[in-house]
Amino acid sequence: MTSQLAVELDQADVLAHKRQEFKLDPGLIYLDGNSLGALPLACIERARDVVENQWGRDLISSWNTHHWIELPAQVGEKIAPLLGAATGQVICCDSISVNLFKILSCAISMRPARRLILSQHDNFPADLYIAQGLSEMLGAENCELQLVNDPEIEGNITEEVAVVVLTHVNYKSGKLHNIERITHLAHEKGALVIWDLAHSTGVLSLEIDKWNVDFAVGCGYKYLNGGPGSPAFIYAATRHHNAIKQPLTGWMGHSQPFAFSKQYQPASGVQQFLSGTPGILSMSVLDAAMEVYAGVDLHQVRDKSISLGELFLALVNEKQELSSLILSSPAQSADRGSQLAFSHPHAFDISQALIDAGIVVDFRSPDILRFGFAPLYVSHFDVYKAVQVLAEIVSKKIYLNHKYGMRQKVT
Amino acid sequence: MTSQLAVELDQADVLAHKRQEFKLDPGLIYLDGNSLGALPLACIERARDVVENQWGRDLISSWNTHHWIELPAQVGEKIAPLLGAATGQVICCDSISVNLFKILSCAISMRPARRLILSQHDNFPADLYIAQGLSEMLGAENCELQLVNDPEIEGNITEEVAVVVLTHVNYKSGKLHNIERITHLAHEKGALVIWDLAHSTGVLSLEIDKWNVDFAVGCGYKYLNGGPGSPAFIYAATRHHNAIKQPLTGWMGHSQPFAFSKQYQPASGVQQFLSGTPGILSMSVLDAAMEVYAGVDLHQVRDKSISLGELFLALVNEKQELSSLILSSPAQSADRGSQLAFSHPHAFDISQALIDAGIVVDFRSPDILRFGFAPLYVSHFDVYKAVQVLAEIVSKKIYLNHKYGMRQKVT
Repeated sequence: MTSQLAVELDQADVLAHKRQEFKLDPGLIYLDGNSLGALPLACIERARDVVENQWGRDLISSWNTHHWIELPAQVGEKIAPLLGAATGQVICCDSISVNLFKILSCAISMRPARRLILSQHDNFPADLYIAQGLSEMLGAENCELQLVNDPEIEGNITEEVAVVVLTHVNYKSGKLHNIERITHLAHEKGALVIWDLAHSTGVLSLEIDKWNVDFAVGCGYKYLNGGPGSPAFIYAATRHHNAIKQPLTGWMGHSQPFAFSKQYQPASGVQQFLSGTPGILSMSVLDAAMEVYAGVDLHQVRDKSISLGELFLALVNEKQELSSLILSSPAQSADRGSQLAFSHPHAFDISQALIDAGIVVDFRSPDILRFGFAPLYVSHFDVYKAVQVLAEIVSKKIYLNHKYGMRQKVT
Repeated sequence: MTSQLAVELDQADVLAHKRQEFKLDPGLIYLDGNSLGALPLACIERARDVVENQWGRDLISSWNTHHWIELPAQVGEKIAPLLGAATGQVICCDSISVNLFKILSCAISMRPARRLILSQHDNFPADLYIAQGLSEMLGAENCELQLVNDPEIEGNITEEVAVVVLTHVNYKSGKLHNIERITHLAHEKGALVIWDLAHSTGVLSLEIDKWNVDFAVGCGYKYLNGGPGSPAFIYAATRHHNAIKQPLTGWMGHSQPFAFSKQYQPASGVQQFLSGTPGILSMSVLDAAMEVYAGVDLHQVRDKSISLGELFLALVNEKQELSSLILSSPAQSADRGSQLAFSHPHAFDISQALIDAGIVVDFRSPDILRFGFAPLYVSHFDVYKAVQVLAEIVSKKIYLNHKYGMRQKVT
């Protein structure tokens, strides 16, 4: 396979023009957009405007004049179409962890006769920690986390399960769950579902209304490109709005936050998932980042994501010198998200050598190299070059020359 | 009293030079820093650097190279001296509401034989909402919020009370609680205390270690000038660190967040109050804002705060045309924080007329005019001019010419 193929694929790419909406060093190949999305140019000006004009000049009046108070709903409504969600069901706030706590509490209270939260051993650990924290708080007799292996999930959805909590795209392997199927099975047993869409939102074509999903959470800093620690979101299907009962009853979720009544009275709909005062700087930047999705067809995004992944895999497979990399993602693109994972005994050192060569990838303990493909700014030629460099590093054992301290990385 | 007095007080002001560290329109008199602090100049450059260089250029590597991962502890350590707290007890994260939920849960679990959370009717409502949410979640048999009037607090601290939750400075009247005295009374009965320091931090001289406080929360967007919705903080006294058990067990509070183990294992100390991924843009800006406090003596800040408030009150008292304003703050400066509140039947319209005249103040339902004095950027001459304009608006009933819709304001 030659570089010519990559060039031709890029020439036919209907999303190629999107890259110019990002600030990205031309010398960099960034295959870690599933950890932290690149910087949309629109965010630069928005950050400056929010800091210098809205805050610095207009000060407290900006809550009204610059509509800060409406930001959580406004950003939620911009995220909703990416989820396949109709209006009034998505709100932007807090972190995934805090939001998952709210939603899990809510789901448990909606199924008072049941106590099990069903998830899988290799779900993203942070989601498991939150379920453990809730269980610890409520007592195992009221709420207990049950963990099973992936193939055993469906068989363990019983009438004792209050809620099934899964991540759509496995953070390590990229393996996809079938949201529609698992949601249907859960509903047949009277259980609710919560989907963590952290690695899906903005890169897969989602239809969570159609799939009858109950609740979902996701973050703003991966494919939504909202910046480091960007606020997260909650989706709650309209049919559940009258049953919402979440414990983090902050004033922003009050029906009349500025009446300063001493009794909490929830706002209607998803608004009641708001808690404290939102981080306006971060949320404004996410709001600006959402502009890159205006008019974008997610089917085209998914198609390009698959095209990038298939090219990467084909290039790795044809190189004898990369036979030491063992694919740990599903081999079929339909079964995985926008990433490829390979195990290798020197995965960490290889990841560092790639980064030093200007190819940013991720390492996941203990031995996983993770390559993420953000279709809005990664090209087929990027993929071609990345595999060439990877092959050189592995075949010449360049990674052995590197001495690194233990680095910490954040998804 | 003449303007000459104000000029002389400003000439003697040892903090006068601080104003030049803020971006503030010279034509504006900003008496609402207790809602949203003004913009420190250092934040402008930091915001630009974090967005364009740290995020836009260095991308995911910034978690290490720009020490994002250390920001919560780093900002916490910068806040600690303002509280009179030794190192290792303060961490920056989430919102006050979310943090109060963590701390309240923790306090309740530390006093398993008790179920009462004691607070006062006119505590900041958002704090009451969080206590209500926790009580609702745990059941009234395990946790119940008991509200009393201010003069009845001390008499109601009984051996049934698990935790006393109060705000140091009343958000409306500015009335101060005696932290040391109430903390001592609570401890005598075996109860814990949580102090909300939202209106105190950075403007009062606090000694919470010396006063034996158990826990505290506060926000970054008032006197700390961290920007709208800036992250909040938690203080937990070292002696309680082994007893911390908080339910929002996110991965940032894990002892080894990047080991991705599936079992939650809390970090040591205050670090375990961290939950999800922190909002790096907002927290970096707060970190930069803390620079204005470097080398500042909080006794001088408190002295100037008192001087500004006393001048304001003296000027109001000497003007016959302002006799319709009824002081609802304590008359003695030692009994109040850095604000003055007056009731007036036309308080809302007067507040709007003042804002139109370039004097930004706050209205609090139903009839309170609230004037906040941020000593780092408000001068005695500002105070003098503000009262002159206020007198003109009230005496000439200028506020009657204004027609406003209901506006929402955020403290």
